[in-house]
Amino acid sequence: MGEGWQSIPGSVAAPQGFRAAGIAAGLKPSGGLDLALIVSEDEAIAAGVFTTNQVRAACVTYGQERLAANPRARAILCNAGQANACTGEDGDRDNRAIADLAAKALDIDSDLVLTASTGVIGQRFDVDKFAKAMPELAELTTTFAPNESAEIASKAILTTDLVEKSIAVEMAIAGHPVRIGGIAKGSGMIHPNMATMLAFVTCDARVSPDLWQAMTTRAADVSFNQITVDGDTSTNDMLLTLANGRSAAPEIAADSPETEQLQAGLNQVCIHLAKAIARDGEGATKLLEIQVNGTATDADARHLARVVASSPLVKTAVYGCDPNWGRLAAAVGKAGVEFDQTKLDIALGHFELMKAGTPLAFDRPAAAAYMKASDTISVAIALHQGSGSGLAWGCDLSYDYVRINAEYTT
Amino acid sequence: MGEGWQSIPGSVAAPQGFRAAGIAAGLKPSGGLDLALIVSEDEAIAAGVFTTNQVRAACVTYGQERLAANPRARAILCNAGQANACTGEDGDRDNRAIADLAAKALDIDSDLVLTASTGVIGQRFDVDKFAKAMPELAELTTTFAPNESAEIASKAILTTDLVEKSIAVEMAIAGHPVRIGGIAKGSGMIHPNMATMLAFVTCDARVSPDLWQAMTTRAADVSFNQITVDGDTSTNDMLLTLANGRSAAPEIAADSPETEQLQAGLNQVCIHLAKAIARDGEGATKLLEIQVNGTATDADARHLARVVASSPLVKTAVYGCDPNWGRLAAAVGKAGVEFDQTKLDIALGHFELMKAGTPLAFDRPAAAAYMKASDTISVAIALHQGSGSGLAWGCDLSYDYVRINAEYTT
Repeated sequence: MGEGWQSIPGSVAAPQGFRAAGIAAGLKPSGGLDLALIVSEDEAIAAGVFTTNQVRAACVTYGQERLAANPRARAILCNAGQANACTGEDGDRDNRAIADLAAKALDIDSDLVLTASTGVIGQRFDVDKFAKAMPELAELTTTFAPNESAEIASKAILTTDLVEKSIAVEMAIAGHPVRIGGIAKGSGMIHPNMATMLAFVTCDARVSPDLWQAMTTRAADVSFNQITVDGDTSTNDMLLTLANGRSAAPEIAADSPETEQLQAGLNQVCIHLAKAIARDGEGATKLLEIQVNGTATDADARHLARVVASSPLVKTAVYGCDPNWGRLAAAVGKAGVEFDQTKLDIALGHFELMKAGTPLAFDRPAAAAYMKASDTISVAIALHQGSGSGLAWGCDLSYDYVRINAEYTT
Repeated sequence: MGEGWQSIPGSVAAPQGFRAAGIAAGLKPSGGLDLALIVSEDEAIAAGVFTTNQVRAACVTYGQERLAANPRARAILCNAGQANACTGEDGDRDNRAIADLAAKALDIDSDLVLTASTGVIGQRFDVDKFAKAMPELAELTTTFAPNESAEIASKAILTTDLVEKSIAVEMAIAGHPVRIGGIAKGSGMIHPNMATMLAFVTCDARVSPDLWQAMTTRAADVSFNQITVDGDTSTNDMLLTLANGRSAAPEIAADSPETEQLQAGLNQVCIHLAKAIARDGEGATKLLEIQVNGTATDADARHLARVVASSPLVKTAVYGCDPNWGRLAAAVGKAGVEFDQTKLDIALGHFELMKAGTPLAFDRPAAAAYMKASDTISVAIALHQGSGSGLAWGCDLSYDYVRINAEYTT
């Protein structure tokens, strides 16, 4: 997957015709960068995947309505500090106001500005601070070198994240370079169905709105919807993708080999960002990668992988570097997918722990040493019921997860 | 619920014709009581609810088959230390062997012995240790005072539990005293659908097998299936209930007022044990009680309550004594039940936190003080979509949960 796509610098500003910047607008009580802007010089085809939470932030409802009305955008404005969720009609008005401010600073139609917010639920943001920062922020997208400005943007969307998440890739399609870039933030409330995470992807391919939305949904299904930190789904999650057609490659036609190439690149970008979010989960010390094979369907495999990656007993065992196949077996069993327990195989890295439902004798100290030494803990589960397969990513559950979330101030 | 049922001493030995005992058989590596026996002097009607995990211990498969063949029993034998799950055909043979040993010691048909195991998955137990301990264990059920022996039994089924869980109640039905007693163990892998928990209930009412199974299932649905510690479901969970008909009360007929009375008592016993398990969840410092009202159905309300009680972000907020209505709102929203977020009310104890989807100004220090001072944290959620209601119980997520589960040796 993603074969042929090469890593390049530049993040969301790498695709042609995209710019980005970040600024400290005074929104975060802790200070620092807290407002990011991504700009497409041309009208871009826009697609989105939004939280399934019944309690939705103003920016979520707004983005869904905007894309339904016209799947095109010129800019994405994202703030950290206040989630602007559970803020009622005031929150809707505030959200519209900051979209207007960005449109004015960029001299574009305000219907072409998408918004995203992250931070404390129930808190409104101070629109005046946006008004004050916006002209400079818009200016910054043109004055910095693209690489630097995109890096600043990737920092400005973070909350409790420890590291920024960013990527760009390039490949020739029909003889012309096509580029995809992305930035994302985690790191708590991460769970399937677009939990508290924001991801913004830019691309210079030319593609129809319907195809771009379908490709975006498909990419989200194998990436962001397959990561879990704590099983909590947030009110603000969204993936927004822009494709501005600036590449000289011809329009990508549905069901063509080029669609598959572009899909592979989009998947690669989204999986990279998703894994980075899981690895940076609150309190995480390790990335947990669960591969499930041999289910009736891919959807079953993805579901099983997610359930195992979500299990607190599996997560604490990983934190404790304990090759605890019993907790893995129990987690597979509880997922609601029927299987024959006498066919269950479980491996941890290159250690086979269980074969045909029976625990194997394995070198326990060596397996524990593998866990201690590895940043990524790989678990492979085979059910031998069919040809379905799927991957999910999570992280361990540490003292720090409890500390961060017991002490986080509301 | 349960009105008229009075608390009495004696636990599972309180109903007429029941005896119990516990012994240190050397099964637990840490030593101490680890083998319990409950005996009915007469053949009792037996019912059970078993784990839904696809990976099942030998005792689970055995119990299901036994009750399907003949819903009657004379004894329940329960060991702590080894779960005897993922032990293949050897495990099945071992399980059958200990049932035979108990039958021999009690001089009864071995088909009338039910078994239960708790402890480390994948480990077989040493049948010889059962053989050695069994005659004395059977003898102990007759030599001790019922209260003392039942207390010892309630201790012998524990693993990482900190306290024993036990109750007995009495009420006159049709003018004659009827008694119900119960013991249970937790405390990790606790989640809806009979997670790692064992509960044994005795009763001296006279009741048909079908009615008793239906009443047992109903009681489990509002009690054990409504508690959660960590979302993990175990391979060994079971609730076994015995009704031996020793009470002078006439047989309980289906759909009679007496059924409702007995059901209320059975619910009361099961809810008491379930709450005790949640309160004693691994690392728990507080019991969390979630009441949901105003859903379309009771099942929706129970589901929503469970999801909120399971949320790690809610659980860490309770540990941090943080009146974090935002996390409560987000947890309600993620449960997959559709509702109008502008009608959502949330209260914490007597503090109203959210009304009609909008956060209220409340006395935050007082609410935090309530949380700090209370052993039980009560959350009330109203959706105003219908007349459904339900309760669920959980506990907070503390550093100790991580410590216990990262350090537990497999």
